[in-house]
Amino acid sequence: MKNIRIEAVDTGLYDIARQRLDTLTKPKGSLGRLEEFAQRIVAIKGNKPPLSLEKKAIFTFASDHGVVEENISLYPKEVTEQMVYNFLKGGAGINVLARHVGADVIVIDIGVDCDFQNTPGLLIKKVVRCTRNMRKGPAMTKNESERCIDTGIDVAIEHAKKGYTIFGTGDMGIGNTTASSAITAVMTGRPVAQVTGKGTGISDQALKHKIKVIEEAIAINVPDPKNPLDVLSKVGGAEIGGIAGLIIGAASRKIPIVLDGFISTAGAMIAYSIEPKVKDYMFAAHKSVEVGHKALLDAIGIEPILDLGLRLGEGTGAALAMHLIEAGLKTYTEMATFEEAGVSNENKS
Amino acid sequence: MKNIRIEAVDTGLYDIARQRLDTLTKPKGSLGRLEEFAQRIVAIKGNKPPLSLEKKAIFTFASDHGVVEENISLYPKEVTEQMVYNFLKGGAGINVLARHVGADVIVIDIGVDCDFQNTPGLLIKKVVRCTRNMRKGPAMTKNESERCIDTGIDVAIEHAKKGYTIFGTGDMGIGNTTASSAITAVMTGRPVAQVTGKGTGISDQALKHKIKVIEEAIAINVPDPKNPLDVLSKVGGAEIGGIAGLIIGAASRKIPIVLDGFISTAGAMIAYSIEPKVKDYMFAAHKSVEVGHKALLDAIGIEPILDLGLRLGEGTGAALAMHLIEAGLKTYTEMATFEEAGVSNENKS
Repeated sequence: MKNIRIEAVDTGLYDIARQRLDTLTKPKGSLGRLEEFAQRIVAIKGNKPPLSLEKKAIFTFASDHGVVEENISLYPKEVTEQMVYNFLKGGAGINVLARHVGADVIVIDIGVDCDFQNTPGLLIKKVVRCTRNMRKGPAMTKNESERCIDTGIDVAIEHAKKGYTIFGTGDMGIGNTTASSAITAVMTGRPVAQVTGKGTGISDQALKHKIKVIEEAIAINVPDPKNPLDVLSKVGGAEIGGIAGLIIGAASRKIPIVLDGFISTAGAMIAYSIEPKVKDYMFAAHKSVEVGHKALLDAIGIEPILDLGLRLGEGTGAALAMHLIEAGLKTYTEMATFEEAGVSNENKS
Repeated sequence: MKNIRIEAVDTGLYDIARQRLDTLTKPKGSLGRLEEFAQRIVAIKGNKPPLSLEKKAIFTFASDHGVVEENISLYPKEVTEQMVYNFLKGGAGINVLARHVGADVIVIDIGVDCDFQNTPGLLIKKVVRCTRNMRKGPAMTKNESERCIDTGIDVAIEHAKKGYTIFGTGDMGIGNTTASSAITAVMTGRPVAQVTGKGTGISDQALKHKIKVIEEAIAINVPDPKNPLDVLSKVGGAEIGGIAGLIIGAASRKIPIVLDGFISTAGAMIAYSIEPKVKDYMFAAHKSVEVGHKALLDAIGIEPILDLGLRLGEGTGAALAMHLIEAGLKTYTEMATFEEAGVSNENKS
């Protein structure tokens, strides 16, 4: 894996941002978390104009999962490929929401089990062609999982150079809640049944089967909770590795990164375990319906922005939350101060 | 008060919208509340194109409160007037957030204690020049409170004619959390201390004083909880009446209306008590920090969209939530179906 240097943010900038926030024409603190977002963006980017989050990108990493042969999803594996075409034609949920917030969608094939043609909006960076079935052995080799992370880092650095100011993570991969629940169980130490949900919407009985498959995958592979690359290789997925790399790359270039839901946060857990300083650059877009998501958010210690009952993935929650973070920054940069507006400040009493 | 006819929405349209939502390229229900927003907009506007929420307006009603002489706010009364000028110059929180989501801000002087010049963006519709001090007697006469509601209805109808597709409510009025807490206590039957918060940020001791002032105002006026006009007159405010009227007018023209925070929801409580059918047209933007807000949301039975620790008012939360409601509608109108995209739907098993 590439050796990437990440600086912690300058926490002194929080106080400097707070001082300006308290001169703006509003009661102190009355914009709540919008003010927190502004403080964090100032701490990440520095307090110099132009402070803007206008150029936005959502990175949707797509990959297939060998464990799908265990019948853990409501959808056939082919849907991963079909949905990539849907992304490229602009008809998926993430396309609609990204357009709505002014973000570009960049799709990365990091492990889909098919051959795509070169198409605008698609980066073909295949590390695997579908992972192996984790119930029978490691999903990836250690080398493959390192290459997934390096791919994410490269994508982040390339798009930082293109002038993008904020990144969102996204995923597409039939079977990837199974991998994410396995990572969550291993890395948080919680029982599989507590961190496994219905994914695309399987029945109660199918959920029991999914839990059993994950338990067996962990039992046969014995991933080491202290070794994020070992966990990613044995019970992870290529898109999860790509997302982990994207986060590391974003942090290395001081780009704020908005985590989508459960799968993205599994990637964030891997990244955070490799380098805890990435936390300074991360925002959690929303609280997913998937039960394992909260366990990951708690383990990292980040508070989700939205709670809208989302469980689609693709980066949909990240797109919505990104727009709220931008709203917070705009109040910071565009609101008038009490002095500029000639508005009386608090009574002394 | 004007006699306005409001139709209940056609609930059959919920099911029709649900059928389309379930053909779109996503697991069923996976866009959570965005799908609920789409269903409600379809039920309000009918299921015929063009279904759009592009032309948006936030209505910020401004008024002064006689009870400010009881020293219940951190800010002097003049701030209401000064903030109206700030709105008109585009420097306030609501201006920044409305620009961010593509909404126009319309400011209505319904009771500010000063004389404004005619200015673009300002509607001078003064019913009172500051209400009277409710601690000493009714804040308004019954006739004044009816005229406040009629003003809101007129503003709604006028802007429906201009082609606006969604409305948000907003308020500006030093002292108006005091009026809103009084309305909440009377109409929900809860003790004043349970529904009174720190407004712009007063101290613990000042909060005790504020509670006492509200208790005395209720004791001297004895508003009738079953009579919303009596409550509005005795312990309300002109902007709260204007907001109630705006909601009634919006519902009469089948325009969805997004309630901002505590003051707006006090207006919604008045409107809902006059005509319960308005509920079909209302969205609650967010859960305010003000403790009384939840009591009102529960009494009406609506679930807030955002929880960002906001307590600024002006319509700021409504602007942000409006954009999320529009996101929900766009997924409904713009996403590809499984058939269009050639994506396999659920396995039969």
